[in-house]
Amino acid sequence: MKIIQEPSLEQWIALTRRGTVPMQTLEPLVREVFNTIRDLGDEAVRRYTRQFDSADLNDLVVSREEMEKASSEVPLELKEAIKLAQENIIAFHTAQKPTGIEVETKPGVRCWQTFQPIEKVGIYIPGGTAPLFSTILMLAVPATIAGCSEIIMCTPPGKDGTIDPVMLYTAQLCGVTSVLKIGGIQAIGALTFGTETVPAVSKIFGPGNQYVTAAKNLATQFGIAIDMPAGPSELMVVADETADPDFVAADLLSQAEHGPDSQVILLTPSPDWIPKVMQSLSAQLKSLPRAEIAERALENSRVICLKDPKQLVDFMNDYAPEHLIINTADNSVYTREVKNAGSVFVGPYTPESAGDYASGTNHTLPTNGYARQFSGVTVGAFMKSTTFQEIDPEGLMHIGKAIEIMAASERLEGHKNAVSLRLEKLRQGEK
Amino acid sequence: MKIIQEPSLEQWIALTRRGTVPMQTLEPLVREVFNTIRDLGDEAVRRYTRQFDSADLNDLVVSREEMEKASSEVPLELKEAIKLAQENIIAFHTAQKPTGIEVETKPGVRCWQTFQPIEKVGIYIPGGTAPLFSTILMLAVPATIAGCSEIIMCTPPGKDGTIDPVMLYTAQLCGVTSVLKIGGIQAIGALTFGTETVPAVSKIFGPGNQYVTAAKNLATQFGIAIDMPAGPSELMVVADETADPDFVAADLLSQAEHGPDSQVILLTPSPDWIPKVMQSLSAQLKSLPRAEIAERALENSRVICLKDPKQLVDFMNDYAPEHLIINTADNSVYTREVKNAGSVFVGPYTPESAGDYASGTNHTLPTNGYARQFSGVTVGAFMKSTTFQEIDPEGLMHIGKAIEIMAASERLEGHKNAVSLRLEKLRQGEK
Repeated sequence: MKIIQEPSLEQWIALTRRGTVPMQTLEPLVREVFNTIRDLGDEAVRRYTRQFDSADLNDLVVSREEMEKASSEVPLELKEAIKLAQENIIAFHTAQKPTGIEVETKPGVRCWQTFQPIEKVGIYIPGGTAPLFSTILMLAVPATIAGCSEIIMCTPPGKDGTIDPVMLYTAQLCGVTSVLKIGGIQAIGALTFGTETVPAVSKIFGPGNQYVTAAKNLATQFGIAIDMPAGPSELMVVADETADPDFVAADLLSQAEHGPDSQVILLTPSPDWIPKVMQSLSAQLKSLPRAEIAERALENSRVICLKDPKQLVDFMNDYAPEHLIINTADNSVYTREVKNAGSVFVGPYTPESAGDYASGTNHTLPTNGYARQFSGVTVGAFMKSTTFQEIDPEGLMHIGKAIEIMAASERLEGHKNAVSLRLEKLRQGEK
Repeated sequence: MKIIQEPSLEQWIALTRRGTVPMQTLEPLVREVFNTIRDLGDEAVRRYTRQFDSADLNDLVVSREEMEKASSEVPLELKEAIKLAQENIIAFHTAQKPTGIEVETKPGVRCWQTFQPIEKVGIYIPGGTAPLFSTILMLAVPATIAGCSEIIMCTPPGKDGTIDPVMLYTAQLCGVTSVLKIGGIQAIGALTFGTETVPAVSKIFGPGNQYVTAAKNLATQFGIAIDMPAGPSELMVVADETADPDFVAADLLSQAEHGPDSQVILLTPSPDWIPKVMQSLSAQLKSLPRAEIAERALENSRVICLKDPKQLVDFMNDYAPEHLIINTADNSVYTREVKNAGSVFVGPYTPESAGDYASGTNHTLPTNGYARQFSGVTVGAFMKSTTFQEIDPEGLMHIGKAIEIMAASERLEGHKNAVSLRLEKLRQGEK
């Protein structure tokens, strides 16, 4: 990790910038896969699954038998851990469920707002070296609380055409309505257009590699909503000399092991304490199975020292971290100033991994500085709101004239007429 | 309007489909404008303003003098109307402001969620034949309630380089922090990258023509959030033989006059009553200044008769209208079944134009069936949420083991370590 003492404001722009991902280059491939799926449906999906995942599938849908068998193959201890996490995620997300409001803006002008679930949603769970069942918890639990009627999960199959049992167990536990053995671009394409076996959905959630990201981006051009733009995972730790260097080092490494493109930032007002963290980091790194990945991530990572508290807080918000650990003598000084961050971990006993799995918060969060304008996944992300208004004759008397004047000024006489005609009939009725 | 009696389910797909807008063809132009603005800043913006808007501007920013002068040029009656609308929009949107939640998911595991304003937002107000000041109300009022610190408004100047006084008056009244005389693609490009005079923003709101729509779509590829995908405006009226045919006809026309690509749908269980509406429609159409536009819109429009109440409600939700008027003998039968709609107008004295201007609800709404997955503009659209967690030693004892098991199963030993190390030190401390 590169240590930067008291960077000047001019340096901040470079220091808060993330590595860029070249998106445009993938578009032709993504567009081709999309077009083929739109034309040929399942046949195309099967072909791409052979090509990209080396799996030759007859049935794209996980069968009831596969589902039932899965539960018996997951160790009891892991099942209990997943259930505990689920409990906490349910508790925190149920409290988030948005409720409507109602306001009488003028006597006789009643306005209200309701929230409805998005009926059909797709959740994408990446494959890779390990089954990422925790992301199923983070997407299917809020979808269920929102009341989505179809929760379609896509995940790439292994070469033998199977899905890890713990993935199927978690999907069942969390209310996923069907699991499809489809990964990558072809999964997003199938969810966008629908095929014989894959229902077209209205919104697609979930992380993925650059192909999935490019595919989700293209899906938006067909009117599909997505959770948020994606980027490599990242962590900022704000800590001072009162923090245990071992804890800070462990936290930095927990993020660095995600991938070589992960970024970790240690932001501190305590220059003399930095070497202790670096020492512990080196020591802990050695025993990490994914040390090689972590090491590469640390090459993109930085320790930034800013003694001025105001500057430190400004840098924290300018960076807009996905994950933010605050581990200092007085944490409230920082927590109350957080403007841009995905999820914040406060105090010495709150490692980031708690939020990745089991504290109850969501781990699908905005990366790449997108915390400036995007939220992590919430129950509200699986819902949309509708407004209503009911105006009685008295209400129309109150606001009718204003509408007529404004509509006329915008030269929309038809808009005005719809009010004038009603006011006229009301006046006639009064006679 | 074409009248369709009892369409079969097979016909529904075509009947709920909107006219498509060719997007891809505009991309090369939009990309070129974006690249030039990124490279040359204001110079490029000025050049495109000359080219596309025939306005030769020295200063892109509306000056304080122009602002101050504007107020005196707006008729008092119009100012009062705008203020009444503003009052109602403030009342309804203030009630929407999301508040945080807090849950102790396990003893010692405290999770909470806060909402912060998006600091810098851009609002785009289209030009055209009339000043659309009502859209300023609909975007700037919720932005102010959310607490956005910079609300940058872009709108195309006239050929003489000026902006209509009522636009400037409304912008001032509603808390817009700066008004820029920039329209079209160049406005969206400037808000995306920032220039010498235009601040780069995090999210862009507002309607526009196909160029603006294509530009907003491209902006998302640079990580800018947008309010929603756009499409031509539309209205569905659900009415039966108890509704006044004049009211229904006036409402259909108020939407049809928006543009030749607008769509209006009358959905009714009452076949014998349809001719009365058609008669009134013809009569009212004649006196409309924008009759020609309305007539063209009516060519794409339909009357659909479905006697079965369940089918009628299903069709209503399948269509997912931007605006939905419900004007029947028992409106609650329909309002309680609304799943997909932008804004709903209930009862005989609630014309759509009330919501366009002054009832208090927002008029920036999802078109093109997007009400299935998108909300209209709310205060929440100008904010984003952050989650927090603070775990004390007791809390980590409760959930630590579950995190360790789950992290190990996902083969993320660094994630596990961050917990194990803390649990170990806690155990040592207990001794």
